[in-house]
Amino acid sequence: MTDATSTDLSQPLAARQAIHRGEWQRHTSGLAPGYAQANLVILPARYAEDFLRFCLRNPRACPLLDVTDSGDPHPRALGHGIDLRHDVPRYRIYREGALNEERTDIGDLWQDDFVTFLIGCSFSFEDALIADGLEVRHIHLDRNVPMYRTLIPLDPSGPFGGNLVVSMRPFRPADAIRAIQITTDMPRVHGAPVHLGLPASLGIADLAHPDFGDSPVINDDELPVFWACGVTPQVAIEAARLPLVITHSPGHMLITDIPNQRLKYG
Amino acid sequence: MTDATSTDLSQPLAARQAIHRGEWQRHTSGLAPGYAQANLVILPARYAEDFLRFCLRNPRACPLLDVTDSGDPHPRALGHGIDLRHDVPRYRIYREGALNEERTDIGDLWQDDFVTFLIGCSFSFEDALIADGLEVRHIHLDRNVPMYRTLIPLDPSGPFGGNLVVSMRPFRPADAIRAIQITTDMPRVHGAPVHLGLPASLGIADLAHPDFGDSPVINDDELPVFWACGVTPQVAIEAARLPLVITHSPGHMLITDIPNQRLKYG
Repeated sequence: MTDATSTDLSQPLAARQAIHRGEWQRHTSGLAPGYAQANLVILPARYAEDFLRFCLRNPRACPLLDVTDSGDPHPRALGHGIDLRHDVPRYRIYREGALNEERTDIGDLWQDDFVTFLIGCSFSFEDALIADGLEVRHIHLDRNVPMYRTLIPLDPSGPFGGNLVVSMRPFRPADAIRAIQITTDMPRVHGAPVHLGLPASLGIADLAHPDFGDSPVINDDELPVFWACGVTPQVAIEAARLPLVITHSPGHMLITDIPNQRLKYG
Repeated sequence: MTDATSTDLSQPLAARQAIHRGEWQRHTSGLAPGYAQANLVILPARYAEDFLRFCLRNPRACPLLDVTDSGDPHPRALGHGIDLRHDVPRYRIYREGALNEERTDIGDLWQDDFVTFLIGCSFSFEDALIADGLEVRHIHLDRNVPMYRTLIPLDPSGPFGGNLVVSMRPFRPADAIRAIQITTDMPRVHGAPVHLGLPASLGIADLAHPDFGDSPVINDDELPVFWACGVTPQVAIEAARLPLVITHSPGHMLITDIPNQRLKYG
């Protein structure tokens, strides 16, 4: 791993090439700013139809940016020359629903029947919120976003189901309304919030203790605002206990050539 | 006043004609359903420029549908043959800031220097909320909407200023988000809410005791959602203590030819 500063990581192709060569193996936050990053789910084709239906039935949690043909490692709609076997800095290999190992390359695990689902990521709408002048608290504090399991059931498909996981960002009421307006226009990256203000209605007992990520800082004049979270499909996949599933490692995303701005209006 | 059932009041022109002839002197809620109704402020021209600036500086509270030329009683953009001297069922005459009398016709009060401001009304967005399947509580309960004075200062102009007045409608959080989305697209009839969830931030001490309208019914799983209210300009006008101002009487609106649907997207 060479010094990252020797490569220009501000453009998506250059960043992917550095990752491809193994020169960048850390999280992708801040790389190629302004371009969308994607969550990755790689499944054998025999599970793909059920998972596709699961995504379509739960679009807030699993907004699809692209689905590859069986065996094709190139999501052509998302950028030039992307190779899903090498272009993600860190992968997670799940066997029978359990995290089995992490790898920086999955070339030798690739199967001719793999179908890859590329799912929109909240990084894109957070960029839009910040560009509008809003403070996104966990970014401002350099923490991970707090995420919570809810009691809201997902619409199941085959082995995939369970409950919605949400991420939370606190805002003063007028800013919460603005955040709803901005993210409403971005349905491919989770879209509008699913809830705000009354966490008990979601089955969240204590905001101070999230199920994933870091604990929040919420001021007295702020409301907690909840978006459907990309961790939802990961939780559903673990619960499905399939023989083999590959995902990105949290925060280690696929960098696409799609400007965040292009994700407005779906 | 003849039996209202003898006239078809479902179309705006017929409804206005019945009002013009003095056959309908009651409130206009439910008349010409699906068409926008407007708030009315009539001022001598020497105050009109200041009031125009006041509306433009506070567009959520005073969204302008039309402003007439000095002395012209016909708001041509709003419908066929409207005559502002006769086509509103009940007018209020303010002298030196005090309500002086109510009339059903102002033909003999009309002045060559009168400028009329026609301001969007929440009836239009409430129609859109109901059409989307939301329950608008005060309509469901056949009450008047609860309205509250706030501590949010308006941007003043000349003699016009004071604080924002808001109307409140309670919704469960997911419906509140939907209501924000729907009204965001209707900026000419108050647009998106200005606040939700934390009335104390607005300076509202007790939701159960509104300053205008009827007391609300809010369930435990609901948030109060606040929109800028058309009562705001009326309060500003009273405080300005002008020699003469004419408005509609609350609920007794001008019926326009503009379908509510046409108020989407501004």
